[in-house]
Amino acid sequence: MIAAPRDEAPEAPEAPEAPETREAREAREAPVQNETARVEAFSDGVFAIAITLLILEIRVPPTAQHDALRLALVNLWPSYLAFLASFLTIGVMWLNHHRLFTLIRKSDDGLIAFNLLLLLGITWIPFPTALLAEHLRGPDQRTAGWVYAGSFFAIAIVFNVMWRYAVRAKTVFDYINAAAITKQYALGPIMYAVLVIVATFSGVWCLIVSVLYAVYFALPPSLWRRKDHRAT
Amino acid sequence: MIAAPRDEAPEAPEAPEAPETREAREAREAPVQNETARVEAFSDGVFAIAITLLILEIRVPPTAQHDALRLALVNLWPSYLAFLASFLTIGVMWLNHHRLFTLIRKSDDGLIAFNLLLLLGITWIPFPTALLAEHLRGPDQRTAGWVYAGSFFAIAIVFNVMWRYAVRAKTVFDYINAAAITKQYALGPIMYAVLVIVATFSGVWCLIVSVLYAVYFALPPSLWRRKDHRAT
Amino acid sequence: MIAAPRDEAPEAPEAPEAPETREAREAREAPVQNETARVEAFSDGVFAIAITLLILEIRVPPTAQHDALRLALVNLWPSYLAFLASFLTIGVMWLNHHRLFTLIRKSDDGLIAFNLLLLLGITWIPFPTALLAEHLRGPDQRTAGWVYAGSFFAIAIVFNVMWRYAVRAKTVFDYINAAAITKQYALGPIMYAVLVIVATFSGVWCLIVSVLYAVYFALPPSLWRRKDHRAT
Amino acid sequence: MIAAPRDEAPEAPEAPEAPETREAREAREAPVQNETARVEAFSDGVFAIAITLLILEIRVPPTAQHDALRLALVNLWPSYLAFLASFLTIGVMWLNHHRLFTLIRKSDDGLIAFNLLLLLGITWIPFPTALLAEHLRGPDQRTAGWVYAGSFFAIAIVFNVMWRYAVRAKTVFDYINAAAITKQYALGPIMYAVLVIVATFSGVWCLIVSVLYAVYFALPPSLWRRKDHRAT
Repeated sequence: MIAAPRDEAPEAPEAPEAPETREAREAREAPVQNETARVEAFSDGVFAIAITLLILEIRVPPTAQHDALRLALVNLWPSYLAFLASFLTIGVMWLNHHRLFTLIRKSDDGLIAFNLLLLLGITWIPFPTALLAEHLRGPDQRTAGWVYAGSFFAIAIVFNVMWRYAVRAKTVFDYINAAAITKQYALGPIMYAVLVIVATFSGVWCLIVSVLYAVYFALPPSLWRRKDHRAT
Repeated sequence: MIAAPRDEAPEAPEAPEAPETREAREAREAPVQNETARVEAFSDGVFAIAITLLILEIRVPPTAQHDALRLALVNLWPSYLAFLASFLTIGVMWLNHHRLFTLIRKSDDGLIAFNLLLLLGITWIPFPTALLAEHLRGPDQRTAGWVYAGSFFAIAIVFNVMWRYAVRAKTVFDYINAAAITKQYALGPIMYAVLVIVATFSGVWCLIVSVLYAVYFALPPSLWRRKDHRAT
Repeated sequence: MIAAPRDEAPEAPEAPEAPETREAREAREAPVQNETARVEAFSDGVFAIAITLLILEIRVPPTAQHDALRLALVNLWPSYLAFLASFLTIGVMWLNHHRLFTLIRKSDDGLIAFNLLLLLGITWIPFPTALLAEHLRGPDQRTAGWVYAGSFFAIAIVFNVMWRYAVRAKTVFDYINAAAITKQYALGPIMYAVLVIVATFSGVWCLIVSVLYAVYFALPPSLWRRKDHRAT
Repeated sequence: MIAAPRDEAPEAPEAPEAPETREAREAREAPVQNETARVEAFSDGVFAIAITLLILEIRVPPTAQHDALRLALVNLWPSYLAFLASFLTIGVMWLNHHRLFTLIRKSDDGLIAFNLLLLLGITWIPFPTALLAEHLRGPDQRTAGWVYAGSFFAIAIVFNVMWRYAVRAKTVFDYINAAAITKQYALGPIMYAVLVIVATFSGVWCLIVSVLYAVYFALPPSLWRRKDHRAT
């Protein structure tokens, strides 16, 4: 028989003699599903705002003498690069968050707390982005780079802890190969630890590697796909 | 029999001879449910934006001589602490708002008005946050702390009034132990009144206590849980 | 028989011999309903952001000598009053928008275009708000007041035109007393025309009257309520 | 028979003897549909924020001597015009995005990646908007105009590539006349290429033509309408 994700088998055996009508069951389950929906909606909002606020960090060069604007715009390249790197990274983290939540059957208080911690990290990103853009060619690019790469590293850690919590709290769907995903998740902190090392040498490379990481993570992760549990 | 939350028993007795089809009933009820959904969606948006705007208050230190950035970043600790305290407090208030609305069966005009008042408070938070961060080490930290703690106190009051209104207007689900939740809600204003007193002595402790409050409120509140009304 | 809102009677007579299954009909109607949902979601987002951006206009007074902050905070009252007036007005306009859309059966291109025009007005509000706050005690408060009141007047006009368009394009539900609502809607432009006159005399009164208007509009408008079309 | 959009005929033949209940099928399909919903919700958020942030670029003129404000407000016309042009263009792009997604049956990783690229463009718009407003009457209006028109051109290209990808990946509904829409989509890049040429001659005309384009695109595109596949 089909293991329908939303049905919690031990709690609601779909016995033919069950007196509970479909309407009643929907009504009973609705608040729980709605809770997850609102957590996702709130998270989507925070991701969307954080990713859009990044543009506010790029300041328009003031009016000057003829043909000065072109040079001024070219000189803004650290801002463009930092904008691109942070946009893609937040975008991929949103994607990651979104995929993670498709695997989660229901939210509980612990998950909501971890999610809040994760959003704290996402909300924080515009600051290190502006910091690294401002100091990319200055004497303190290493410090700025560490703050930048360290922020991503911390978020990757929170993602891992959150996923492991969800697996242990049994709030994920049964048909998921949780172990394989846990293994894949562990890659994030390692990659962003490497980014911290890269930042030690060059702020520019720190941003370029961030872009490359984001492109890599955006590639189709076949592991996330739901297995075809309809077979048989 | 199961008291299915969405069914308003006296209005829509599920009589077997009822000529009303499921489609018709859904169509009839849809706008009401949609109303609550849009109130929640709008509120989620305001919470998400207010919580994300907080980062705009942390200004990037300008480029200076070598190794000056590290010190400048350390000196920004009042901004980080205020950001953390307000982020967690708004986050917990969102959680609270979200839980409260899972208990509410339908929204009416009074509830929408109270909700607007609540959102006014949430939208206001970035200002006292920036105020306290700016004045945390200055001669006027007490004034800034009062504005900060007083804002949270006012929001806690609005939460209480709103909940009591919802209980009295009978817009909450029947199976809820409303009295117990009312009692628990009353804790908020008391705690934030204490925070106002703390702010009299120290702006820093005002922020630290705010963080502790938020962590406390984020802990699983077993009272909020729906009782298992399926038993029998 | 019940005039179920979502069913377009002339198009889809629910004949017992109809070969169309419920699944098929839902699939067919889904995109249209989804269209309205996304228009509302997008509008909610714009309303929520515009209402939250208002706080950015209130600038934190810089650190100064002892006890100077209290006076500086008191002197910010024009900003608080403008914030309050615009918050409540946008809030009530959101409420209005929300109620209007519960009466709308489906969206068409004209409605979407009018909605975009309406959102243009909402997005614009933070500018006249900051303008009036800045000039409330200056020699040019009349000019600032006109821009402020004129903006609300223009939005009220757009609301009216949009509603009349929806009624004429027959995209509202049949059971609605459209004429009565049209009459009620006509009140908006008149009230905000009066506000323009008030602004001629005093910027402060322009803001106070805006607050009073918002409170008035937030009161339960029994006309909006769906008539109980279940009787018979 | 009706080709119900959500049913993937070869996968789920609606055979009368099918042992799969409606509940089971809904549960199985829910995550996929939810994925599209969250992509749309996230996109809506980004569009809504980008369109609302535009107002932050219009700076309030400071208090000055009597009657100076009126002139100062008139002198802000480049900001108003740039605000209007970008608001309408983002609005129409949202509409376009929204229509495109009503044609898309399900999202896959490639589509999500293209969508992220598209949102990168939308998020970017506030910068060229402020840039052109600032330099509209300066010696470098041509440079600013190119950046402005070039940004729209790039977004139009991404829309095209994304649509062609969706058609090729067969993620669009079957009943759509994809070739006709592809042809219509190709108009966008051509029109915005013309805008780049217009920007070479005049920044003001670049903005006026942008407004005209937006109005043109907002007109009812009969091609987008779903054909009446209920006939027969």
